[in-house]
Amino acid sequence: MTTSPITLPVAPDRSFASDNAAGAHPAVLAALAEANVGHQLAYGSDRHTAACEQAFRELFDADVVTRLTFNGTGANVAALATLMGSLRGPHHAIVCTNWSHIEADETGAPERILGTKLIDLPSPDAKITPAQLTDLGELQGVVHHVQPGIVSITQPTELGTLYTPDEIAEICDTAHRMGMLVHLDGARIANATAALGADRAALRSFTIDAGVDALSFGGTKNGLLGAEAVVFLDPDVAHGSAYVRKQVTQLPSKMRYLAAQFNAVLADDLWIDLGAHSNTMAHDLHQAASDIDGVDIGPAPQVNSVFPQLDPTMIEPLRDWCFFWDWDTSRHQVRWMTAWDTTSDDITRFVDGVTALAAARSGS
Amino acid sequence: MTTSPITLPVAPDRSFASDNAAGAHPAVLAALAEANVGHQLAYGSDRHTAACEQAFRELFDADVVTRLTFNGTGANVAALATLMGSLRGPHHAIVCTNWSHIEADETGAPERILGTKLIDLPSPDAKITPAQLTDLGELQGVVHHVQPGIVSITQPTELGTLYTPDEIAEICDTAHRMGMLVHLDGARIANATAALGADRAALRSFTIDAGVDALSFGGTKNGLLGAEAVVFLDPDVAHGSAYVRKQVTQLPSKMRYLAAQFNAVLADDLWIDLGAHSNTMAHDLHQAASDIDGVDIGPAPQVNSVFPQLDPTMIEPLRDWCFFWDWDTSRHQVRWMTAWDTTSDDITRFVDGVTALAAARSGS
Amino acid sequence: MTTSPITLPVAPDRSFASDNAAGAHPAVLAALAEANVGHQLAYGSDRHTAACEQAFRELFDADVVTRLTFNGTGANVAALATLMGSLRGPHHAIVCTNWSHIEADETGAPERILGTKLIDLPSPDAKITPAQLTDLGELQGVVHHVQPGIVSITQPTELGTLYTPDEIAEICDTAHRMGMLVHLDGARIANATAALGADRAALRSFTIDAGVDALSFGGTKNGLLGAEAVVFLDPDVAHGSAYVRKQVTQLPSKMRYLAAQFNAVLADDLWIDLGAHSNTMAHDLHQAASDIDGVDIGPAPQVNSVFPQLDPTMIEPLRDWCFFWDWDTSRHQVRWMTAWDTTSDDITRFVDGVTALAAARSGS
Amino acid sequence: MTTSPITLPVAPDRSFASDNAAGAHPAVLAALAEANVGHQLAYGSDRHTAACEQAFRELFDADVVTRLTFNGTGANVAALATLMGSLRGPHHAIVCTNWSHIEADETGAPERILGTKLIDLPSPDAKITPAQLTDLGELQGVVHHVQPGIVSITQPTELGTLYTPDEIAEICDTAHRMGMLVHLDGARIANATAALGADRAALRSFTIDAGVDALSFGGTKNGLLGAEAVVFLDPDVAHGSAYVRKQVTQLPSKMRYLAAQFNAVLADDLWIDLGAHSNTMAHDLHQAASDIDGVDIGPAPQVNSVFPQLDPTMIEPLRDWCFFWDWDTSRHQVRWMTAWDTTSDDITRFVDGVTALAAARSGS
Repeated sequence: MTTSPITLPVAPDRSFASDNAAGAHPAVLAALAEANVGHQLAYGSDRHTAACEQAFRELFDADVVTRLTFNGTGANVAALATLMGSLRGPHHAIVCTNWSHIEADETGAPERILGTKLIDLPSPDAKITPAQLTDLGELQGVVHHVQPGIVSITQPTELGTLYTPDEIAEICDTAHRMGMLVHLDGARIANATAALGADRAALRSFTIDAGVDALSFGGTKNGLLGAEAVVFLDPDVAHGSAYVRKQVTQLPSKMRYLAAQFNAVLADDLWIDLGAHSNTMAHDLHQAASDIDGVDIGPAPQVNSVFPQLDPTMIEPLRDWCFFWDWDTSRHQVRWMTAWDTTSDDITRFVDGVTALAAARSGS
Repeated sequence: MTTSPITLPVAPDRSFASDNAAGAHPAVLAALAEANVGHQLAYGSDRHTAACEQAFRELFDADVVTRLTFNGTGANVAALATLMGSLRGPHHAIVCTNWSHIEADETGAPERILGTKLIDLPSPDAKITPAQLTDLGELQGVVHHVQPGIVSITQPTELGTLYTPDEIAEICDTAHRMGMLVHLDGARIANATAALGADRAALRSFTIDAGVDALSFGGTKNGLLGAEAVVFLDPDVAHGSAYVRKQVTQLPSKMRYLAAQFNAVLADDLWIDLGAHSNTMAHDLHQAASDIDGVDIGPAPQVNSVFPQLDPTMIEPLRDWCFFWDWDTSRHQVRWMTAWDTTSDDITRFVDGVTALAAARSGS
Repeated sequence: MTTSPITLPVAPDRSFASDNAAGAHPAVLAALAEANVGHQLAYGSDRHTAACEQAFRELFDADVVTRLTFNGTGANVAALATLMGSLRGPHHAIVCTNWSHIEADETGAPERILGTKLIDLPSPDAKITPAQLTDLGELQGVVHHVQPGIVSITQPTELGTLYTPDEIAEICDTAHRMGMLVHLDGARIANATAALGADRAALRSFTIDAGVDALSFGGTKNGLLGAEAVVFLDPDVAHGSAYVRKQVTQLPSKMRYLAAQFNAVLADDLWIDLGAHSNTMAHDLHQAASDIDGVDIGPAPQVNSVFPQLDPTMIEPLRDWCFFWDWDTSRHQVRWMTAWDTTSDDITRFVDGVTALAAARSGS
Repeated sequence: MTTSPITLPVAPDRSFASDNAAGAHPAVLAALAEANVGHQLAYGSDRHTAACEQAFRELFDADVVTRLTFNGTGANVAALATLMGSLRGPHHAIVCTNWSHIEADETGAPERILGTKLIDLPSPDAKITPAQLTDLGELQGVVHHVQPGIVSITQPTELGTLYTPDEIAEICDTAHRMGMLVHLDGARIANATAALGADRAALRSFTIDAGVDALSFGGTKNGLLGAEAVVFLDPDVAHGSAYVRKQVTQLPSKMRYLAAQFNAVLADDLWIDLGAHSNTMAHDLHQAASDIDGVDIGPAPQVNSVFPQLDPTMIEPLRDWCFFWDWDTSRHQVRWMTAWDTTSDDITRFVDGVTALAAARSGS
């Protein structure tokens, strides 16, 4: 009845839990040290913030309005509350999918802070279709129903899928025709940018060129200690955003430290490189683990996460050895996510461990 | 009609604008670098956060519950929303003074996020008296009035005054007898602690020993890049606080970096030393500038700010040379605030500049 | 190509649009006149309100707490806001179906006023199953998700279906085991009571005996001018309800006029008789229209609405002659709803009209 | 030591507690009976509501938008929430006095439902001055402060005082120059209208002609069972008001019954006559009671309430005999309020009772 213990190789130095579990890029830490000189006025009246706002204008080649915030939920709430102010009246709703972070993973922050209903459209791939928006037309003009006000899409989605720029443009067109505004949650926008061309033109293609009104531009998951930017691509919809950021608790006092982080990665498009590396590592992991017995590796990743189904006996030993999160326990599906700092050696070691466990399983 | 230009000395390296304008202490930056190793799980499941929570338990010598947040408004809102959950019903109000940061300087964040009225008691010194609370008893039991639910006091106050520990204890006793809870906004709690004894016993005397239920423990104004802690001194009133922090957008993903900052200053009570230094510098500035013509220096500071009234012709030239903020323009009153990093040389140079301007003024 | 005009009989005196379109019962108007004598203190300190509260205690044979409100949305919001106060913390959600009035037909009032997310479970028959609640257990304990706090069911449902008392009891048991409270939206509770036994025991079987915590007891759709009652079946969960009612704008000043309306129909269980009559009329209408060509009459009504699918060419002429609302235009389905004052003659005339239109259609 | 019992006359048929304690005018009850015929569509699609909206357009001789609501708190919240929607962003505040009903007597409904701070200006006579508004200019443009968005004044005020039309016009001018909108809480607008000229021109002089944007037009305190109207004097600021009314729980389903009440008193300006009668009765009461020992009757009423200070030994016996409310117990001040149905006989009897008690007191 005894089973011989499985001997696993040395675990990878970095887990596949989340890009949130990664540390900060050395350039980011260096920028903090560089910014830590003397006194600078608080709340954004410092030279690092001015430089950051300029960097975002150059990034989008437009007169965008940037508001730095602490975290993703804060960025989303600040963006949505500002956009809601551009609509007239509190009876507007935010349209998203059932997978949206704002719907599923923010503990009701939008409803609490905006007082607004979220209409969560069912979506197998976490993407909204224009037809789903058109269908909401039946709510319009009826006093008993909330009125569709903002569409919030996520790119890449919470399921790791991508909209094409054309798909986003069509959503924006439809929304604008219906009198709605468009928010893009870009918590992992670097991964999307890397996947869609890996340059500034790629970024612009699915944001400002597509007609998005405001976006949450993620930094934390891409090598920062912690900073996100709300970027209003149309200055008109940024009206009031400075007040709103403060009201929703997202105004940093020593803002230079958030700005410095972004400045470090916006320089020379380092942020795109980091996203591209993370995507490549996920691709490599998918390849390397695709032929292991007991592992149904699933489709190739579009960005930086792999969603394999595992032989259930493997999951806990593997997790104990190198942590990752469950995805859909009913299907024994887990998520392996790479980060800006994942190395090829991490992947080799991890796949070796999976292989060893799979062999032990089939040998038992 | 020409006036000879006033020759001012070299300006101080650091202004007297705000402790918010100061940078971070070297130990804090070092701690960030030290924490930046490998992967650690997000949202507080990391060893730095565990150490930080333990450090706060030791600081208060009690089983306190600590929730790190990004900034002061966030800390206040998270604390108040959690306490409000311990009261039964949305009809409770928060009692504060007209000077309170939550009332005057948070762009309505409490009302927006809690949906709660703030009852702002008039106060010449920014302190609440127990009699003011007792007077609110007339609201109790009347269905048309909000019911007093939480008292929020600030220590030191927004005017730089201090409650004695006994005064806070009496407020807590009165509030608790009336069925209310007590929150203490300690954005500059280091300065209060330093002024009231400069050790852990001093901190405890006006917080946990006095009966305060929850406090916002400031870090940012005392040498951190940016981090505050909500400390629930009674674990029972911390119920739900983890969810509430997330809901009010204040859950950091890479929490290790906030924890590391606090760990750096909690070690060896560095935070008290920094507060004490800042207080000393304000005392020295007050002394050094007390005999200058054209400067009505006002009462000696209890903590780290001086509120002089200046000859109005001096204000703009002085500010252009070394920045500070107006306080009450109707009386030509300004605020000079010291920080953890203010030096004696800064004070000497600043007073030299004030003296030179005053002399030029009287010579005109 | 010309069609001879269809000669329709005289339209019914009352349409089949809604029980909301019906007037008030004569006993209700008489009660208003009777209550309109002299001065009586406002806000419920009058003898009619006292009598009404007593009548509800007798109706449920328990020490229930009754709060009269103006309308159904107000009753729901007042009930839910009070129950939410019994949960600790703002991070709780309300669980309902996608058909729920609070979800679909109140223009976001719950989100606006409570700041709370509604979790809308998909349901083909507008009923929640205990298994759906159990599945929500996966949200519990995870800080990123709202926590299920209240289950709100509707009886009869918005689709005219009924829960059995046992089904409601099982929902209550499940909810309570999970730490949740249960609200029942009884906008048409008279129709449900009539259908499930037509006496007080029937009412109690699916409310207080089943374990419901609070209910919205409808009056307006059952012969009142306008009044609803929030009934807290457990006095403990009524804590704060008097303040909450005022805060959510639902405290009537001249409350005697709302109480008098309820007193008129609670006397001798007139309210049940009115509900029973309405149900009978719907049953008769369903029978009488079940064999008309071009009319797919659908299942027999459980309460007071019939949902036929009509030949699309019939719908507009029929509606112009005697108004009713669309239900599902994609299937040419409409709703015919009876009321407390619908007569057999109304049904005869209406069916004659439908028959005439159907014949004209088939003759064309 | 025994005192002979005081023999008081028969108490008045109607107390002096409140105009809220009065019943409904016979014309109002008759209108309800008249409206109770047949089916009429709900939610305002009935002929009585159409007539009511037309009556209000004629009353103001302008294309005003009228939304009927249930009660005063509901009217205020619906008006303010709609106006707030015309401002861009949630960071605006409502400016009022410390006596305002919205500030002091609505259990925090505005904060809960709008999420908005109320800035309550201190005022000895419950009136706002333009200079107080101008002073708020110091908040404008500072990101840490809520931005003044709406001024809400009350006419007559909660203290029974009146603004002149010119005073309101100056407030409106100042507010509009500062980018603010103006709401007028007219819970007792009939009394103000009667006092300022007693015709439609008087009403218009302090509302639409003065520049008010929206008002709460009271009915309940002036002979209705219960109905108030929000009147948007500028159709542009009514944008979204139909949705907002529903969202704040104030959309009546059987709206014909609210409309019929208003139609009854708007006909032939009956509402002004009722307000004038109430004012006259207060004037008569003030006259008749002005020379009684132990009664310091105070200034002559501008509308329908008298605020005498009484010998403290008289208060409870008098109240037990004929009810009224305390006003300021520290000064033994009470409020005697007349209503549309107060009679000269009520006043005679009441003054006789006061006189008898005063005599007994002085004889003791």
